[in-house]
Amino acid sequence: MKILVINGPNLNMLGVREPDVYGTETLARINEKLASYVGDRATLEFFQSNSEGGIIDKIHSSDADGIVLNAGAYTHYSYAIHDAIKCISAPVVEVHLSNIYKREEYRHKSVIAAACAGSVCGFGADSYVLAAEALLRKKGV
Amino acid sequence: MKILVINGPNLNMLGVREPDVYGTETLARINEKLASYVGDRATLEFFQSNSEGGIIDKIHSSDADGIVLNAGAYTHYSYAIHDAIKCISAPVVEVHLSNIYKREEYRHKSVIAAACAGSVCGFGADSYVLAAEALLRKKGV
Amino acid sequence: MKILVINGPNLNMLGVREPDVYGTETLARINEKLASYVGDRATLEFFQSNSEGGIIDKIHSSDADGIVLNAGAYTHYSYAIHDAIKCISAPVVEVHLSNIYKREEYRHKSVIAAACAGSVCGFGADSYVLAAEALLRKKGV
Amino acid sequence: MKILVINGPNLNMLGVREPDVYGTETLARINEKLASYVGDRATLEFFQSNSEGGIIDKIHSSDADGIVLNAGAYTHYSYAIHDAIKCISAPVVEVHLSNIYKREEYRHKSVIAAACAGSVCGFGADSYVLAAEALLRKKGV
Amino acid sequence: MKILVINGPNLNMLGVREPDVYGTETLARINEKLASYVGDRATLEFFQSNSEGGIIDKIHSSDADGIVLNAGAYTHYSYAIHDAIKCISAPVVEVHLSNIYKREEYRHKSVIAAACAGSVCGFGADSYVLAAEALLRKKGV
Amino acid sequence: MKILVINGPNLNMLGVREPDVYGTETLARINEKLASYVGDRATLEFFQSNSEGGIIDKIHSSDADGIVLNAGAYTHYSYAIHDAIKCISAPVVEVHLSNIYKREEYRHKSVIAAACAGSVCGFGADSYVLAAEALLRKKGV
Amino acid sequence: MKILVINGPNLNMLGVREPDVYGTETLARINEKLASYVGDRATLEFFQSNSEGGIIDKIHSSDADGIVLNAGAYTHYSYAIHDAIKCISAPVVEVHLSNIYKREEYRHKSVIAAACAGSVCGFGADSYVLAAEALLRKKGV
Amino acid sequence: MKILVINGPNLNMLGVREPDVYGTETLARINEKLASYVGDRATLEFFQSNSEGGIIDKIHSSDADGIVLNAGAYTHYSYAIHDAIKCISAPVVEVHLSNIYKREEYRHKSVIAAACAGSVCGFGADSYVLAAEALLRKKGV
Amino acid sequence: MKILVINGPNLNMLGVREPDVYGTETLARINEKLASYVGDRATLEFFQSNSEGGIIDKIHSSDADGIVLNAGAYTHYSYAIHDAIKCISAPVVEVHLSNIYKREEYRHKSVIAAACAGSVCGFGADSYVLAAEALLRKKGV
Amino acid sequence: MKILVINGPNLNMLGVREPDVYGTETLARINEKLASYVGDRATLEFFQSNSEGGIIDKIHSSDADGIVLNAGAYTHYSYAIHDAIKCISAPVVEVHLSNIYKREEYRHKSVIAAACAGSVCGFGADSYVLAAEALLRKKGV
Amino acid sequence: MKILVINGPNLNMLGVREPDVYGTETLARINEKLASYVGDRATLEFFQSNSEGGIIDKIHSSDADGIVLNAGAYTHYSYAIHDAIKCISAPVVEVHLSNIYKREEYRHKSVIAAACAGSVCGFGADSYVLAAEALLRKKGV
Amino acid sequence: MKILVINGPNLNMLGVREPDVYGTETLARINEKLASYVGDRATLEFFQSNSEGGIIDKIHSSDADGIVLNAGAYTHYSYAIHDAIKCISAPVVEVHLSNIYKREEYRHKSVIAAACAGSVCGFGADSYVLAAEALLRKKGV
Repeated sequence: MKILVINGPNLNMLGVREPDVYGTETLARINEKLASYVGDRATLEFFQSNSEGGIIDKIHSSDADGIVLNAGAYTHYSYAIHDAIKCISAPVVEVHLSNIYKREEYRHKSVIAAACAGSVCGFGADSYVLAAEALLRKKGV
Repeated sequence: MKILVINGPNLNMLGVREPDVYGTETLARINEKLASYVGDRATLEFFQSNSEGGIIDKIHSSDADGIVLNAGAYTHYSYAIHDAIKCISAPVVEVHLSNIYKREEYRHKSVIAAACAGSVCGFGADSYVLAAEALLRKKGV
Repeated sequence: MKILVINGPNLNMLGVREPDVYGTETLARINEKLASYVGDRATLEFFQSNSEGGIIDKIHSSDADGIVLNAGAYTHYSYAIHDAIKCISAPVVEVHLSNIYKREEYRHKSVIAAACAGSVCGFGADSYVLAAEALLRKKGV
Repeated sequence: MKILVINGPNLNMLGVREPDVYGTETLARINEKLASYVGDRATLEFFQSNSEGGIIDKIHSSDADGIVLNAGAYTHYSYAIHDAIKCISAPVVEVHLSNIYKREEYRHKSVIAAACAGSVCGFGADSYVLAAEALLRKKGV
Repeated sequence: MKILVINGPNLNMLGVREPDVYGTETLARINEKLASYVGDRATLEFFQSNSEGGIIDKIHSSDADGIVLNAGAYTHYSYAIHDAIKCISAPVVEVHLSNIYKREEYRHKSVIAAACAGSVCGFGADSYVLAAEALLRKKGV
Repeated sequence: MKILVINGPNLNMLGVREPDVYGTETLARINEKLASYVGDRATLEFFQSNSEGGIIDKIHSSDADGIVLNAGAYTHYSYAIHDAIKCISAPVVEVHLSNIYKREEYRHKSVIAAACAGSVCGFGADSYVLAAEALLRKKGV
Repeated sequence: MKILVINGPNLNMLGVREPDVYGTETLARINEKLASYVGDRATLEFFQSNSEGGIIDKIHSSDADGIVLNAGAYTHYSYAIHDAIKCISAPVVEVHLSNIYKREEYRHKSVIAAACAGSVCGFGADSYVLAAEALLRKKGV
Repeated sequence: MKILVINGPNLNMLGVREPDVYGTETLARINEKLASYVGDRATLEFFQSNSEGGIIDKIHSSDADGIVLNAGAYTHYSYAIHDAIKCISAPVVEVHLSNIYKREEYRHKSVIAAACAGSVCGFGADSYVLAAEALLRKKGV
Repeated sequence: MKILVINGPNLNMLGVREPDVYGTETLARINEKLASYVGDRATLEFFQSNSEGGIIDKIHSSDADGIVLNAGAYTHYSYAIHDAIKCISAPVVEVHLSNIYKREEYRHKSVIAAACAGSVCGFGADSYVLAAEALLRKKGV
Repeated sequence: MKILVINGPNLNMLGVREPDVYGTETLARINEKLASYVGDRATLEFFQSNSEGGIIDKIHSSDADGIVLNAGAYTHYSYAIHDAIKCISAPVVEVHLSNIYKREEYRHKSVIAAACAGSVCGFGADSYVLAAEALLRKKGV
Repeated sequence: MKILVINGPNLNMLGVREPDVYGTETLARINEKLASYVGDRATLEFFQSNSEGGIIDKIHSSDADGIVLNAGAYTHYSYAIHDAIKCISAPVVEVHLSNIYKREEYRHKSVIAAACAGSVCGFGADSYVLAAEALLRKKGV
Repeated sequence: MKILVINGPNLNMLGVREPDVYGTETLARINEKLASYVGDRATLEFFQSNSEGGIIDKIHSSDADGIVLNAGAYTHYSYAIHDAIKCISAPVVEVHLSNIYKREEYRHKSVIAAACAGSVCGFGADSYVLAAEALLRKKGV
């Protein structure tokens, strides 16, 4: 099984960016944690982009059996990413590091959630772990 | 470690209730699956009630180290359950069987999310499994 | 045929409660009128509760062939009762004594209507009679 | 006693129009059913018009003791029909064939309800029968 | 100078219709008062219709130098009458018998006001007199 | 009979202020026109203030039999002036020079209209003349 | 093939009505242009009415294979015309002369669009030509 | 005179629950303070419940001459408690410990206020004292 | 201890102004009642102004230990008074004579509440008494 | 004459993407159909990008005499594309394959429509053909 | 060149008022800084008032070539000040000490901005300096 | 000190794009004016991109001590740029050439303002000059 992990805008800045909200772990460290959890149950591919179009291109071209997607702020307005998720048959799981319902009102609304299989939010690096577990369980791995 | 699993209104009807939305698994079967996953990493307590006050009483009186909460339709208007979650120090994880963002607009809004540690939705019985895993990982179990 | 008549919050106070809005008939008197109308075309069961959870429990456990439901103020916010109605196959008819569209704006919206077979409002005790007639006609009784 | 039955826009197309929503019964057949139910308890007059002004004229000029009114889509915006109902002293009962609360959001709002004595919706042809029964009972017929 | 006085839906019922809101004067009596005020400063033509299309046709075909228009409930939603007013060059003055701002919220909004030269409301029969005076003064009569 | 004419904020700038909206007539000239129209049917008192409190004080202390009030921009938010109008028994007529429904959306709403006897808008200086006429006719002068 | 062209309220005034918005072409001239374009690929029937009910009657009774509909201002509130379109099986194409998105906000919303096959707006007389072409291509003519 | 003091959901957790918002005083301590203030001017009865239905039952069955009601989060959505207050003739005073206008927006709206005699908020335990004083003064005690 | 009592717009008209809403007591009589209640527990200063700026100036310049503020209609829109309250350290208690939640919707919203220590409404003259008591108890007087 | 055809996000996936909504034709096939229709009346250039910035760059740099633009989901929020259209003088025609008014509410709103010459929607591949025809007719080709 | 600096409500309390929001500088100190920056490039006049009417009077009577205006909380609702700015030809620059977009939602909206030449906010005392610089540059000083 | 000047979508078209709104100066000319003003008080870097992702990448990678940002239409919806600004410690000043409050309503809202140090709008090229001055003054340069 192959899982693609997509991180959207500003997630390359983790560790530096507002540590009181997002913690001090870098994205590299989160990826390591996830790889360590998944082990050889699946192959992982990591992708980060600040570009909405770049994320759409990646979703279209992926051959993964499932996608873990943290769309960052695009979560709140990118109907284009919503449509991209609907273009493919592989399940997509939406993740967020922080509990978006404890933050600004505009972060409470996800325009991509309705296109995803499910969502996990609020557990920091563990959000990715749980999303991967969800995909693995869907595949019966 | 002790985990309390609270199911709110109408979840006792799982298996009978709108099977195209909620599937044909009964709540008992979901509980079994969860118990099987958790094994001896934690003790599980199961509670179901259709009563808002009953759920609040249970949250107050629980001695669990973490709570998995599917508040059913109370999710969308029970500020009283929101406050009950804030009354205790144990983390509460919100779960939903279905992807609530694919359903009626009023189901998109959770008034309890901001009081919870995090949320998991859309994975059927696995939503409970992932929520429990989240609590176990928080405790380092 | 069996018909269950459920009266929700504050309907036990009929006759006492705001007589200019609800009239001076007690709930007992309304029940008598309804029984007199139905005669032996159906068995009637009467239930009143001020508790949202109690109403949900009753809907779940009923073996009636149809339900006449005056959910009182829960009409306007109880998505949990909405879901309870969807849990059963027997048709539910929503009734109101007063014309709710002549009153405060929040009473214009019913969150349970979409789960019911139909609704009757504004005819006082006759609202119950007409709702029962609707159920009897559905059954061809 | 005399009852006027007014059917508004597009109800002349019943039987042809969206049969999954409105059924296959024609308006003529519904009128027959109603006449059969009412028998000689009252005289019935049937009127159908697609014209808002025509419906208002009919309401003004009627000498009926009660009106059964299905205003079709005018239900949702014709404040002029609302005012016409208020111009007369005979009670008007609003009816709908389908459960308007299960349909598009704009159909949930009736601007004429507050001017009517009461409303009945969701019972197909029986909605008319029940509305007539309501008027007959008001007159003690 | 010629002034056309258009009265819309339900104004033919003045004197009968909700006398606590609209008074007990008939439309004929209001017209007389207006004629008496105007005297020979202008020719008056009176038109009443409950039909939106009829009012539009009249506006299009009129050769009057000014129009006094009480559009009744169409005031609140007839963008078609708004457009009809814009089709002609003669000034149109909007009138209302009652103070629409003391009534239901939906009566506070006029969709025709922006197409009119001005408006007069709240003075009963005098609203028509003042509107006519406004037109006479515009013409310097 | 005595009529008080109150002009609110920025109306002292008429003639200078946005002449394309308000015309080139000064307030003094409008007052003259009004005085000329009223002649000896009534005594006129003119008052202008840019101060909300000053206008309220004037309304309270006036011994006029009627008030013509152009509240300027206070029209749109001064609930305090609304209340001041309700404190006195003399009728108040709201006037506006321009047709406020042709301008910015916030100018479409008058929070004082519901406290006034009626309103006249869109006729320039004639708005004052018509408002005075309305008061004179109310008094039978 | 037969195409019915329906023009709603105020379109009989084209050429006279607000020429800066609608141009100086009369409806007769637009009809000629359309007839010239269609030639003998289809029979054309032209209908204009300012009456909502008249338009509904025409839609019901038409035997055309397709309808080109400019509903004028009824576009923005006539749910009755929306329902009339749904009563028939022939496809209806919505047209507008002007680009309604460049005008007042209330003109941005079409309540009939969801009942139509498609829409064309902003091309003046060509909007009709393109709508007819769309119907012809649907029929393979 | 008898005063009933009703505390709603989560108020049993005072002293433990979010002490930065609600202080560290327990409900028992607040009750003592109130009893000490009232002394023998009135008999006090204390009732706490997390159940909406339980609170309604208590309001119905009370023989008190006045009620001090802190409905907790039910304040913001329980139209059923609103109706229960209207069922009885004894005056009810709404109280809140914290200033609800300094907190989340949904706490700014009370759906029970319009059914109460008055309200007191923001004074901690003193809110109860002042509410009781209000009731005592109403009775002239 | 010194308490300043500020009454805003139109409160000088108490006794005259809408007696069905505000009662027939004059402001002078309310002040006497308050003085009688407070006795020598505190010095009282009374201030009334219809001017928003005058109220702000008074708040800034006051040396009182607490303020009882009935801001009248300014309550609903004066963010400037809100800010003035925040400029000083003495606690301010908001009072209203009537229960503002039983009145027009715009009176339900207070823009000054969030800047105040607490609020008391609905008890007529007693609202002032209770507000003063609240301030006295805060000071331990 | 030169026409540029721009397809925005996810339109490269046509044929694969939600065939029940968008049909099974690929974008290449739609382009062929369009080329076949246009023949040698104009030169066509085809451009597809999932990137908002890429679409803007293309609009700026184009030397076409007209643009056919299907902006996909960017239609609903890209004010930047709206502005890009306004930067150039060549007319832009908005197209959509599906009838966006039959779909989710957020798809009913186009933020680019007001910057375009006109729009065509709901005709599948024919939407492009009609848009091109509109441009050709504008040029008199 | 002459520049008038107007400070509105509560700005006289700078240094005392919420120092975490507005800093500890007094208005006098800010004025000094501004005077020091402007030097002899322009004459400065300083005006502060808590009265909306006072600010309007000052704007009307000023002979300055430009105005720097911090309208304080009037920024958010004083359409009367908006109109006053439009009464004069001298450019007005809106300033705010704090970044109003980081504060309560009601502070995000300026009703005077559309009447001003431009705005500067978020730079403390430097906001005034930059606004003056803007006016100086407009005059070419 | 180093200042980065970022110009977003469509600003490369200045001079060509809607000159009545944006003037006829090119971006190159504005940059020159800014360079001339700043002189050797700071090093300037100029960057323009139509790509949201490109702007985010630039913000992340910049080593400037302050940023002047004209985000063009992204101002109104790019929460991703908002987050990018929060990722860095250098202050960002938002600028706009035109007074965005005089334009379409959607341009009145900036979703990036809350992440910036301050904002300057409405002064054409001088907006950049003033923003740079603000940054220089912050650094004490």
